[in-house]
Amino acid sequence: MECKIPNKHVLQQKKDFLYHIGYSTDDDLPQKFGDVKFVCMGGSANRMLVFAELMRKELGLDVEIKDMCSTDRYSMYKVGPVLAVNHHMGMPSLSILLNEIVKLLHYAKCSDVVMIRIGTSGGIGVKPGTVVVTETAVNEMFEPIYNIAVLGKIKSRQTKLSEEILKTLLQCKHKSDPFDVVKGNTMSTSDFYEGQGRLDGALCDYTEKEKMEYLKIAEQNGVKNIEMESTCFAAMCDAVGLRGAIVCVALLNRLEGDQIETPTEELKRMEDNPQKIVSRYIKQKLN
Amino acid sequence: MECKIPNKHVLQQKKDFLYHIGYSTDDDLPQKFGDVKFVCMGGSANRMLVFAELMRKELGLDVEIKDMCSTDRYSMYKVGPVLAVNHHMGMPSLSILLNEIVKLLHYAKCSDVVMIRIGTSGGIGVKPGTVVVTETAVNEMFEPIYNIAVLGKIKSRQTKLSEEILKTLLQCKHKSDPFDVVKGNTMSTSDFYEGQGRLDGALCDYTEKEKMEYLKIAEQNGVKNIEMESTCFAAMCDAVGLRGAIVCVALLNRLEGDQIETPTEELKRMEDNPQKIVSRYIKQKLN
Repeated sequence: MECKIPNKHVLQQKKDFLYHIGYSTDDDLPQKFGDVKFVCMGGSANRMLVFAELMRKELGLDVEIKDMCSTDRYSMYKVGPVLAVNHHMGMPSLSILLNEIVKLLHYAKCSDVVMIRIGTSGGIGVKPGTVVVTETAVNEMFEPIYNIAVLGKIKSRQTKLSEEILKTLLQCKHKSDPFDVVKGNTMSTSDFYEGQGRLDGALCDYTEKEKMEYLKIAEQNGVKNIEMESTCFAAMCDAVGLRGAIVCVALLNRLEGDQIETPTEELKRMEDNPQKIVSRYIKQKLN
Repeated sequence: MECKIPNKHVLQQKKDFLYHIGYSTDDDLPQKFGDVKFVCMGGSANRMLVFAELMRKELGLDVEIKDMCSTDRYSMYKVGPVLAVNHHMGMPSLSILLNEIVKLLHYAKCSDVVMIRIGTSGGIGVKPGTVVVTETAVNEMFEPIYNIAVLGKIKSRQTKLSEEILKTLLQCKHKSDPFDVVKGNTMSTSDFYEGQGRLDGALCDYTEKEKMEYLKIAEQNGVKNIEMESTCFAAMCDAVGLRGAIVCVALLNRLEGDQIETPTEELKRMEDNPQKIVSRYIKQKLN
């Protein structure tokens, strides 16, 4: 299936400049990106570089890995059919990238592309290191929608991910993995501190009891982890007809605290967990 | 005036780890940051490095400029009393940084700090290159508020900036400057494409006529430029009692188009415009 853009206006433009990633339709996009089958994204640029290196090893490809974004807004790496790009933190930054990546895939004449977000998150009732594959992305009110203000009016979009990819990802766990892989709802917020009920931000006018009540209600609504991008990611994939999945590691259990006190080395090991699952998925699909 | 944190919970913690900027209260923060008087922030890390270099030259300080963030989430440079840090794009990313910077200023025992956002934006009815100093930061419905979901309920905060700094900044224009400096309202959105009424995103289900009507109503509401951070920035400054100002260059006139087609070299020159105004302000205040 070809990657299409639902927006007729932009297709009438003689030229389209993808400002934040630094490409335009004057570039030979089919030659540069036409073979892309998997777009993997996460917040941190370093983490996406590590993922690109993992994919090079796993796919046995002898390619040079370099940042393909000429701007300093995002970092993008390509390893054969895998494009790894970082989106920084939060839905607005992700939204800009998704708009430009979706247009890039269309102009490059890509087909049958799978979109996967590989992220970090705070867990709810799961052990640190656990990989959560998102069943439904929900907002702070536990609704499966993404709200966006368009011409001053709020539009609500459904957050639909691929059930088939979810199932396959869950099967990519190996018995020997020293971490759990579970499915669950992922809550997406627009702030890391108050937005996620933390007590340790600069501002906080609620009590610890109120915070715990909120997290418990989240848990009752099937929320297994909290991050800052999933509803936007799922809504965009659904709106443009791309199959999408979200695979995040939980760095801590929010029912036990707010601060991330794990040593850096251990955090880095945890961040490898979702990458391992996704790399196995990609290898399986390519074979 | 000392930098205070309104949150009592975090002050009771034995230790506070500022996760995204990579500092904790175990570091000697007063020694490292105690002399900071101006926190200047913008989206792009490169631009903040350029600003740090400008301030080093303007203040005649013989200091080494290096990234003081040990994480890859943000980049931070210090030149004497000036801290220059990037926040990437969008309010969620800015909100994380502001929470941690405000706590940093408190732990470092800083006093009389001024916060200035130096950004890029799309203008409304102004020439490309024009510097807009924000009078009021408004949301997509032209309301002077910042909405944030806290424990699943929307809280609205006022977006109040310093009138005194606004006035002084406007006076920092020199007759010889080849650009205008104006005051006006700044509209903050959560998306660059549909959120700002662009026709060139991956999604767009409105007409050009509807877009232009929206931008015209924005203009009637005193909006001179559109970006993605101002309401969050203003609300946080107001909530923690810090004086704040927002100074952005308009890279294009949105009444004439959506795409940024200006050559890179000229864009870079335009990005220097707000930096010049802010550097003059800082020099004046230090003398």
